[in-house]
Amino acid sequence: MPRKKLKSDLAWSTVDRIVVRGKDLPGEILGHLNLGDMAFLELTGRTPNANESKIFNAMVVTLVEHGVTPSAIVARLTYLGAPEALQAAVAGGLLGLGSVFVGSTEGVARLLTEAAGKDAKQIIAEHKRIPGLGHPLHKPVDPRTVRLFEIARETGHYGKYCRLMEEIAKEKKLTLNATGAIGALACELGLDWKIVRGLGVMARAVGLVGHILEETRDPMATEIWERVDEEASAHLKPKK
Amino acid sequence: MPRKKLKSDLAWSTVDRIVVRGKDLPGEILGHLNLGDMAFLELTGRTPNANESKIFNAMVVTLVEHGVTPSAIVARLTYLGAPEALQAAVAGGLLGLGSVFVGSTEGVARLLTEAAGKDAKQIIAEHKRIPGLGHPLHKPVDPRTVRLFEIARETGHYGKYCRLMEEIAKEKKLTLNATGAIGALACELGLDWKIVRGLGVMARAVGLVGHILEETRDPMATEIWERVDEEASAHLKPKK
Amino acid sequence: MPRKKLKSDLAWSTVDRIVVRGKDLPGEILGHLNLGDMAFLELTGRTPNANESKIFNAMVVTLVEHGVTPSAIVARLTYLGAPEALQAAVAGGLLGLGSVFVGSTEGVARLLTEAAGKDAKQIIAEHKRIPGLGHPLHKPVDPRTVRLFEIARETGHYGKYCRLMEEIAKEKKLTLNATGAIGALACELGLDWKIVRGLGVMARAVGLVGHILEETRDPMATEIWERVDEEASAHLKPKK
Amino acid sequence: MPRKKLKSDLAWSTVDRIVVRGKDLPGEILGHLNLGDMAFLELTGRTPNANESKIFNAMVVTLVEHGVTPSAIVARLTYLGAPEALQAAVAGGLLGLGSVFVGSTEGVARLLTEAAGKDAKQIIAEHKRIPGLGHPLHKPVDPRTVRLFEIARETGHYGKYCRLMEEIAKEKKLTLNATGAIGALACELGLDWKIVRGLGVMARAVGLVGHILEETRDPMATEIWERVDEEASAHLKPKK
Repeated sequence: MPRKKLKSDLAWSTVDRIVVRGKDLPGEILGHLNLGDMAFLELTGRTPNANESKIFNAMVVTLVEHGVTPSAIVARLTYLGAPEALQAAVAGGLLGLGSVFVGSTEGVARLLTEAAGKDAKQIIAEHKRIPGLGHPLHKPVDPRTVRLFEIARETGHYGKYCRLMEEIAKEKKLTLNATGAIGALACELGLDWKIVRGLGVMARAVGLVGHILEETRDPMATEIWERVDEEASAHLKPKK
Repeated sequence: MPRKKLKSDLAWSTVDRIVVRGKDLPGEILGHLNLGDMAFLELTGRTPNANESKIFNAMVVTLVEHGVTPSAIVARLTYLGAPEALQAAVAGGLLGLGSVFVGSTEGVARLLTEAAGKDAKQIIAEHKRIPGLGHPLHKPVDPRTVRLFEIARETGHYGKYCRLMEEIAKEKKLTLNATGAIGALACELGLDWKIVRGLGVMARAVGLVGHILEETRDPMATEIWERVDEEASAHLKPKK
Repeated sequence: MPRKKLKSDLAWSTVDRIVVRGKDLPGEILGHLNLGDMAFLELTGRTPNANESKIFNAMVVTLVEHGVTPSAIVARLTYLGAPEALQAAVAGGLLGLGSVFVGSTEGVARLLTEAAGKDAKQIIAEHKRIPGLGHPLHKPVDPRTVRLFEIARETGHYGKYCRLMEEIAKEKKLTLNATGAIGALACELGLDWKIVRGLGVMARAVGLVGHILEETRDPMATEIWERVDEEASAHLKPKK
Repeated sequence: MPRKKLKSDLAWSTVDRIVVRGKDLPGEILGHLNLGDMAFLELTGRTPNANESKIFNAMVVTLVEHGVTPSAIVARLTYLGAPEALQAAVAGGLLGLGSVFVGSTEGVARLLTEAAGKDAKQIIAEHKRIPGLGHPLHKPVDPRTVRLFEIARETGHYGKYCRLMEEIAKEKKLTLNATGAIGALACELGLDWKIVRGLGVMARAVGLVGHILEETRDPMATEIWERVDEEASAHLKPKK
């Protein structure tokens, strides 16, 4: 049976050369691109200009650190049992970045992509639930959204998607949260919605390494475990 | 029983404020720090100066993309089965960053930390196997090491650890590979060896998102699976 | 703020006792329940009778081993990079058990649960795509389905859900595959559809350990990697 | 370059046949082997006799459920964020089964394998730390060890490895815990130490599905998160 050819355009190397996305890694990338720019290169196939670099880095940086989230607790508890496998602790922490939390950036980007040409009212009418809106703590405004849109304006990336999300939020009288802003900005940058959740995933990988470092110095995993286990099973144990 | 207090210094938020590592996220971080700088902040508790930013970003960027590695194949095969869970595909790809591949940065940093005060010959005498040396393809020199040490010199980060690793490599007549260089540079920056594997983990999270994006456009997972399955079980099947 | 109480009914222990689901682990479980029975106890809160034990074990055993699947390749590639973390290799292999493969057991159980009272034609009319039908290789019949329903009849578990799935398959002229049969049988046993994917997950964990053992003896991971990498990047490399 | 052949002996299928480890899946396995027996088949290449089935199932069943462990908390927190990916919640829970907890079964099996021919005193003299000994709660005896060795005697599997571990424990005046007993029994059964950690991994996969089911009914993940986050960041927030 004739077989499909395997093909990847991301990188190649020979004895003395390493080329990523068509650029010489030592000569054109190292010392020239920061980590956010490198992510931009991976996702778009080209290096960002200064404005793109600024807004894209801001978007990803926003998602790095949110304190002791479920993800962070997971990474710390995993590290407790397998300190020899730091990569597994980070991976464990990433696994919960599904539909409930970080996934909403993807939801927003998808919504905006698929709603091409529609206005805020139409979109609201057609969707029971719109992602990227509302926040349990930051209301009526999410200070990250304000700042991200300020940078977007400054760098020429505040466009129709940002405007539309702001109109939707106003209409629904809900906070436009940071994931909503980032989803809209991903569309402004032309990113495929299917990969937008990846911005949060790469960002959180950075943050989780920070949590694991803190766990090595000021651990909380054992204490969390013992408290939870004791309380959760107390009703089952025979009274002394 | 008196309980240990849970404590994290990484972040806090109130209705209108989000503070990470003592810095106001919207006001002092977004638009000011790139993703590599943010990682530096997470790992050291302070923002890098321009020189630190340059070398640190270069170190992490080096580890982002290596073509179709086992990690990348894992991410693609995982995405094939669970496209609704991109985070799991990235996490899957990270799980193999253990002792064999990316872990050698940690090994180098640990070796150099624990060998404080010793010279190249002593270190060689005391260790059967020294990580960070040798490369199946890039020999006699790894072009990434050359470039990283060039940036290190330029930014004032080429110090005793870099020198020591170069002496060890020369003595052993082996290539000082990129993980060896990065392990040494991590020591120059004062990073704790216990977290050095995390540099590769965060970098590869970025690269794996790139692979998943390519997989959505130019898939190879099904083809890999079918070829492997067919070949591996051919000897078991009844001859027709 | 008054807090919600943490509570788990699964297990408790004291100095000399370990009780799982209300049963004394050493005295009432070890030596009395096999691994499938123990899974049944975890999922239903009671020990299975002989008929339940037979059908439930058959359902789970069906899903243990499918040869060199994407999951198995993932586990082997992960083990290649992190042989010190066997648990991560198994976990990696499980991550792809999403909507595309094993998830269809869940889809079937959910469909049958939500379609209570409807007949085959109604269900077909209301669903664009029905999970558990069709198989690339096993057609017109999946031999596992035949055998599972035979055991179901023998043990008194062939009921309305099995019948309904068979009618749907007949109507659609498609093979009722093993995941379709298992989804129906899960309903016969009264299992919550939300946990049905878990049957495949636990079964595959068993199978993946088998693959890792074989990988330690007769490895294929490096070979897969090298072939894929070489072919995928060949078009990028300069002609010699 | 001549290539290594890919080869797996685990399973093959054709249109109407599925064969696992040389046995016809529908005809010789389903309805005949329970889940523990199937694991035995995967790990040894043959079906267990009644005695082997009893001891092996008991060993694995012992490791299924331990209440609200770090693993279980991880699975629940992961499920909170990604309820659409149950497989990721189970996988997340498995990732912490490293050197600290379940890994000790592997440690014991390795120690006993490598110490072939030595007696308790020699082994103690040669090892700073011996795995499988001591328990924070179950002392002076672990009731699981007592019961496992009872079944071992009954089934003819109490042999030199069990005896040696008991002598070591007596000599060290420490409890021989369940992982110590299981490590010894794995040697009695001739299992390769490299795969012994896999017994705990497969067992815990079963248990974690049980925890996720309970989480869907009686959730604790949000409550754990909120308590931990609030307490851990309290010292950073401005006093009102």
